[in-house]
Amino acid sequence: MKILAIDTSNQPLSVAVMDNDQLLAETTLTTHRKHAEFLMPVIEDLVQKSALTPNDLDRIVVASGPGSYTGIRMATTAAKTLASTLQIELVTVSSLLTLALNVSTSKSLINPIFDARNQNMFTGLYRWENGVMTAVIADQHTNLNDWLTKLADVKEPITILGETAPFLDAFSKQFGNQLQVADNLMGVPNAAKLGLYGAKLRPVSDIDAVVPRYLRLTKAEADWKKDHPGEDARNYVEKI
Amino acid sequence: MKILAIDTSNQPLSVAVMDNDQLLAETTLTTHRKHAEFLMPVIEDLVQKSALTPNDLDRIVVASGPGSYTGIRMATTAAKTLASTLQIELVTVSSLLTLALNVSTSKSLINPIFDARNQNMFTGLYRWENGVMTAVIADQHTNLNDWLTKLADVKEPITILGETAPFLDAFSKQFGNQLQVADNLMGVPNAAKLGLYGAKLRPVSDIDAVVPRYLRLTKAEADWKKDHPGEDARNYVEKI
Repeated sequence: MKILAIDTSNQPLSVAVMDNDQLLAETTLTTHRKHAEFLMPVIEDLVQKSALTPNDLDRIVVASGPGSYTGIRMATTAAKTLASTLQIELVTVSSLLTLALNVSTSKSLINPIFDARNQNMFTGLYRWENGVMTAVIADQHTNLNDWLTKLADVKEPITILGETAPFLDAFSKQFGNQLQVADNLMGVPNAAKLGLYGAKLRPVSDIDAVVPRYLRLTKAEADWKKDHPGEDARNYVEKI
Repeated sequence: MKILAIDTSNQPLSVAVMDNDQLLAETTLTTHRKHAEFLMPVIEDLVQKSALTPNDLDRIVVASGPGSYTGIRMATTAAKTLASTLQIELVTVSSLLTLALNVSTSKSLINPIFDARNQNMFTGLYRWENGVMTAVIADQHTNLNDWLTKLADVKEPITILGETAPFLDAFSKQFGNQLQVADNLMGVPNAAKLGLYGAKLRPVSDIDAVVPRYLRLTKAEADWKKDHPGEDARNYVEKI
């Protein structure tokens, strides 16, 4: 099975082409936010360097959020468009889980973090269970204090990775020697690991229904909700 | 410090541009052996996508062997040429050590393997010691049986990675439950990890003196040696 894996959830862009568990080609860039400019040319370049054409692809695996609005919209839209056009399978994976895949040990809880400004974060808690990356606490948009309260009972080693800098002091204070901080390299998503993980998942049944996992309302949505008390927020997308 | 890291020791080509411990851009390809065709364009592309020019680079880190003759000559020549032209530092790292960097645990010995045909291998034994990848048994060109004899006293977990397939049965037989076999993705060198490792090493003092670490004689050298018994084999390069 030929797999194209895409993650542009935050500043890094990572794209890989896999043949089952074999990496064919991968590029990761971290220096810009111009995913609109780089994503499609990088995909085309890697498919070609893999000696494939787009028609050889069997499955797209995309990190669909949470993350930056623009980044996850870009990846999800590119993935949906390619899957529809090529009539191939689409698999979506949490962008936090994707980052967690960089930690290989099963001896530690894994806590990937995306900074959401002002002491807020997108985060979730994971661990390897029988070779499967498993959510212990679901992905969420939360603030630092609430998250640390949720982790109050954690007595085992915990590895944080990603945009950890704004939260490091508070984690150190709560966890002391339990805390392990992954290096900067582990904070960059690796599309090859995303592709490997996504190869084993069931594809989505309705490609058109896939939306980015924002995990918080956009300002426009929040404003709409305020003006339409009592209405189902899911109507927002349809009405606007 | 801006670092360019290069590994084309075997079929995979991996190139990364780092800013100290931050990955800027990386590409890894595994599907071809046309390193001569791809290496320089990939380097140019990644330097440009890192928003740098070659003159911004401070150091080249190259995996200089062992590996395929063509591959390690290509990487070493490119690295020497760039370091000389740009008048920047050059660091060489064992290609086996580079592969070993993919294993992050310090709870296991690490045994990277390149297949050298007919039950021969390039291999070495490593472990993480205080955060430094350290050789336990030096890199060598050897055959399977001799190598397993050298490992006879190993009583701890041992992780093999790389071109392990031809040797798997023999390792399984000797090590049983001690043996861990890394997945295929870990068998592909990661230039970002090479750059990170090489950032801490002292550069070579004489760029011109750097040669690939072949670790075995070419057929031409072996023939020369047979015809010149008693002569220092190092004369071969100068005389031919």
